[in-house]
Amino acid sequence: MRLKRKDILTIEELAGDEIELILSTAESLKEVSEREIKKVPTLRGRTIINLFYEASTRTRTSFEIAAKRMSADAINISASSSSVVKGETLKDTARNIEAMNPDCIVLRHSSSGAPEMLAKLVKCSVINAGDGSHEHPSQALLDLLTVKQRFGKIQGLKVAIIGDILHSRVARSNIYGFTKLGAEVSVAGPPTMMPSKIEKTGCRAFNRIEDAIKDADVIMMLRIQLERQKTGLFPTVREYSRLFGLDSKKLENAKKPAPEGFNRGDVVILHPGPVNRGIEISSDVADGKYSLILEQVKNGVAVRMALFYLLMGGARE
Amino acid sequence: MRLKRKDILTIEELAGDEIELILSTAESLKEVSEREIKKVPTLRGRTIINLFYEASTRTRTSFEIAAKRMSADAINISASSSSVVKGETLKDTARNIEAMNPDCIVLRHSSSGAPEMLAKLVKCSVINAGDGSHEHPSQALLDLLTVKQRFGKIQGLKVAIIGDILHSRVARSNIYGFTKLGAEVSVAGPPTMMPSKIEKTGCRAFNRIEDAIKDADVIMMLRIQLERQKTGLFPTVREYSRLFGLDSKKLENAKKPAPEGFNRGDVVILHPGPVNRGIEISSDVADGKYSLILEQVKNGVAVRMALFYLLMGGARE
Amino acid sequence: MRLKRKDILTIEELAGDEIELILSTAESLKEVSEREIKKVPTLRGRTIINLFYEASTRTRTSFEIAAKRMSADAINISASSSSVVKGETLKDTARNIEAMNPDCIVLRHSSSGAPEMLAKLVKCSVINAGDGSHEHPSQALLDLLTVKQRFGKIQGLKVAIIGDILHSRVARSNIYGFTKLGAEVSVAGPPTMMPSKIEKTGCRAFNRIEDAIKDADVIMMLRIQLERQKTGLFPTVREYSRLFGLDSKKLENAKKPAPEGFNRGDVVILHPGPVNRGIEISSDVADGKYSLILEQVKNGVAVRMALFYLLMGGARE
Repeated sequence: MRLKRKDILTIEELAGDEIELILSTAESLKEVSEREIKKVPTLRGRTIINLFYEASTRTRTSFEIAAKRMSADAINISASSSSVVKGETLKDTARNIEAMNPDCIVLRHSSSGAPEMLAKLVKCSVINAGDGSHEHPSQALLDLLTVKQRFGKIQGLKVAIIGDILHSRVARSNIYGFTKLGAEVSVAGPPTMMPSKIEKTGCRAFNRIEDAIKDADVIMMLRIQLERQKTGLFPTVREYSRLFGLDSKKLENAKKPAPEGFNRGDVVILHPGPVNRGIEISSDVADGKYSLILEQVKNGVAVRMALFYLLMGGARE
Repeated sequence: MRLKRKDILTIEELAGDEIELILSTAESLKEVSEREIKKVPTLRGRTIINLFYEASTRTRTSFEIAAKRMSADAINISASSSSVVKGETLKDTARNIEAMNPDCIVLRHSSSGAPEMLAKLVKCSVINAGDGSHEHPSQALLDLLTVKQRFGKIQGLKVAIIGDILHSRVARSNIYGFTKLGAEVSVAGPPTMMPSKIEKTGCRAFNRIEDAIKDADVIMMLRIQLERQKTGLFPTVREYSRLFGLDSKKLENAKKPAPEGFNRGDVVILHPGPVNRGIEISSDVADGKYSLILEQVKNGVAVRMALFYLLMGGARE
Repeated sequence: MRLKRKDILTIEELAGDEIELILSTAESLKEVSEREIKKVPTLRGRTIINLFYEASTRTRTSFEIAAKRMSADAINISASSSSVVKGETLKDTARNIEAMNPDCIVLRHSSSGAPEMLAKLVKCSVINAGDGSHEHPSQALLDLLTVKQRFGKIQGLKVAIIGDILHSRVARSNIYGFTKLGAEVSVAGPPTMMPSKIEKTGCRAFNRIEDAIKDADVIMMLRIQLERQKTGLFPTVREYSRLFGLDSKKLENAKKPAPEGFNRGDVVILHPGPVNRGIEISSDVADGKYSLILEQVKNGVAVRMALFYLLMGGARE
C-alpha cells in the first residue's frame, strides 16, 4: 500500500480513509520500536533530509529515529548552518537539496505555507513538520493514533482543545483530524487567542475551559508560548493559568461518570509538549493516570515510520 | 582502481589522467543516486569525518550523502562544537581524530593550506573541502564533470570565469582543472579582484566581462562575497552587478552561433552556489536554459562518491 | 557476558571485577577499529542517544564512532537545540526521549548527579559521559586500559595525578579506578584545588608536583580550566605552569631507574585532552616518548564499544 499523494502537507487535505490508512500502518509498525532489534530493512537506500528552520529536539529526533528504524539514511540540516546564513532563499535551498536526489524532505519552517511551496518545487516527497501557525500534520496523526488506541475508535468522541487556538498549528491540524474521523470538537481559550470564525471548522467555541471540557473524552492542552505575553495576548501567566490551565480540580468537575468497572469511559489528557508545568497544565495532571503525554511521543515515532513507508516504501498502487 | 595518492588537496597537484579517472568513476557512480535503493555496499565499515571549520550546508550535505550512499559511516564535527571552542589547535584536533581510526577526513577550513598540514599529520586520507582562498578541488571536479557530460570533452573548450578571481578558491581550482584538461580559460573581474600575475597560470585576463565571455562555451560566474564591499574591494553592489553581473543581454551578445540543429554549440552557465540572484547573475539566466547550476549539485554527490571510492575502496594497484 | 547493572554512572560504584570485565572486553574490541571494515553487526537495530548539555567534540565523537562500529543507530542531541531552549527540564526531556524507545542514553551534563537522576527515571541504559565535577567514568576506563596495556597490570603501580584535583571529574573517576585495581595514587595541586579530605579516598596528597611524581609509573596531568583563574583559584597561568606544569626537567628528576634493557619500568604520561600546551604540560613532554595521550584517545573508542556491548549486547547472565 502506498498513499496516492506525494506529500503530507496538511490534515485539511487528507481524506478520512487516508488518515485511517496512516493510523493502521503506524499501529503495525509500532511494535518495531519494542523489539530488541528496532529496525526493518524496508527503506534501505532511501535518503531523508530533515530540514529544520526552527529548532526542535523532539520532532527532529522523532523523525530521525523513525528514518533509521526504517533503515533509511537521515541527514539533518538546521537553519543555523551555512547557506541559510548566507541568505539563500528556501526556493534555492530546495532545488539544491533536490539535486542531491533525496527521497523525502521533512521541513519545519516558521512561515505558514513553506512546505506547500517546497512540495511544488521538488519531485521528492515533502512532509510538513510544522509550518508557522498553519499545520503540524504528523502531530495530529500521532494524537489521533493515541486516542484511537485508547478508545478503539475516534467516531463519536468528545474532544476539547484548550489554549491559544488562533496561533496553534497543533490545534488546527487536530481540529481537522478529529472532525474528519467523526469526533465532536470543542475549543476554549482567551478571546485574543480564538479565531474569529472558528465555528466554520465545525468546532464549538467556548469562553470558559470548564464548558469546553465538560463530559469530554479527550482534553488536549496546548503549550502556551510564554513569549506571546509581551505582545499583549494575555495579561499574566498566573491569570492564564487560573482561567485556562488544567488542574485536578477542573478535571474532576468535568469528568463524566465512567461505566462500572470500565476505564474506557475515562477522560484522557494530551499535550504536544514540551509542557510548561504549572501553567497550562498542573504537574499532577500531566503525570497523572489520565495523561497520555508519553504515549503520544511513543506514537510519534510510529506515525513517522508509517508516513515514510506510505510515501516511499509501499508498492505503488 | 585506486588513486596512487593518499589525499585530494588541490587540483594543482593532480595529473590530467588522475582527473580523468575521477571523472569517469563519478560518471559510473552517478546512476546510484538515481536508483530507488541509492546505496552500494562498497565502503561499509569505513569511517569518514566531516571536519568543518566554516559553515556550509551544501558541501557538508553533499559529502555526507556521498558517504552514506557508499555505505560508509559519516561523522560530522563542526567548529562551533567543543574542543575547537576550548582552543585546541588543528594539529591536536587532527591527531586526536586520527587516533579514532578514521579512513578519511574531509576538511573545510578558513586558512589556506590547512588540509596540506592535516594530510602530513595523519595517515588516513584527507579531502580538502575548501581552504581559505586557496583551493576547492571537489568543486572543480564537479564543474569539470558537468562540462564534460555536456560537451563530451573538455579539450578545446573556451571557459570564462568571472568575478573575484583573486580570493576565490573555486576559481583557482577550476583554472588548474580546465587548463590541465586542455581548455582555454579567460578571467574577468574588477582590478582589485584580479591576481597580479594571473597570466602565469595560463589564463587570459580581461578587464571587461564582455571580452572574457565572447564566444565562450562555458561561463562560470563566481559568488560575490558581499561582506568584501566593506573592505573597499568594490564600490557598490549595483555597480559590480552592472559591470560584472551576467544577464541575458550580456549573454546573448557573447554567444557564438550554434551549428544548425545542435545544442552542443550552446554556451553553458555554471555557478558554485549559493547564488546572489540579481547581483552576479540575473534570475532569468540562473534559471534559464543555459544554466547547469543544479546539474553541478547533482554531480557534486557523484564526484564525492568517486573520491571516497578511489581513496578508500578500490583495490590498491 | 553482560554487566549486571543497567547503567554506568560512576567508577565509585563499580566493583574491581566489573572494571576488569570492561577492560578485557575493550581489549578484544579494539582490533575492530584496526580492520579495513571497522564494523561488527552486534548492536544492529539498537538506538543510542548522545544527549550533550555541554559541548564536547572528542567525547561525543568517540561515543558516536563506537556506536556506529557496533552497528547501532546513534542520534545526537545537543543542548543548543530546541526543547532545551524552550526550558524543558532534564526530567521531562528524559521521559520524552525514553518514550522513543532508545536502548541507551549517553549523557553529558554540567550538574553533578544528573546521570543518576536520569538513570532512575528511564528503563534504558544510561552512560555518564561527564557530570559537573563529579565523575567521568568512560575517561577513567580508557585511562586504566591504556595503563594496563602498557604495564600488563594495574596492581602495584604508582600513579600521580596533578592539577585541579578538587574540580576534576577525571581525577575523581581515576582515583577510584586506580585504587580499586590496586594502584597507589598520589595527587598534587595548588592548595585551592585540593579537596579537604582527600586522604579518605586512599590517595596521598602532596603540595609539590615533584614529590607526587617521584618514582611514579604513571603521571596523569589534568587540563587546567583557564577560566578558573578569574575566580582566584590560581594567581597566574605562568605561576601555575612553573609550579605544577610538567616539563622534561621535572620529568627526568622524577623518573625511577628502568631495569636494564626494559622499557617497562619507564614512566608514562597521560592527559585527558584537550591539552593546554606549555601550561600544564610542555609540548616536548606531550609529544614525547613517554606520552600515551593518543593511545588514550584510541582506547576511548574501544572502551565505549565495550560499554555499549556489555550494557546492551551480551547475552543476559
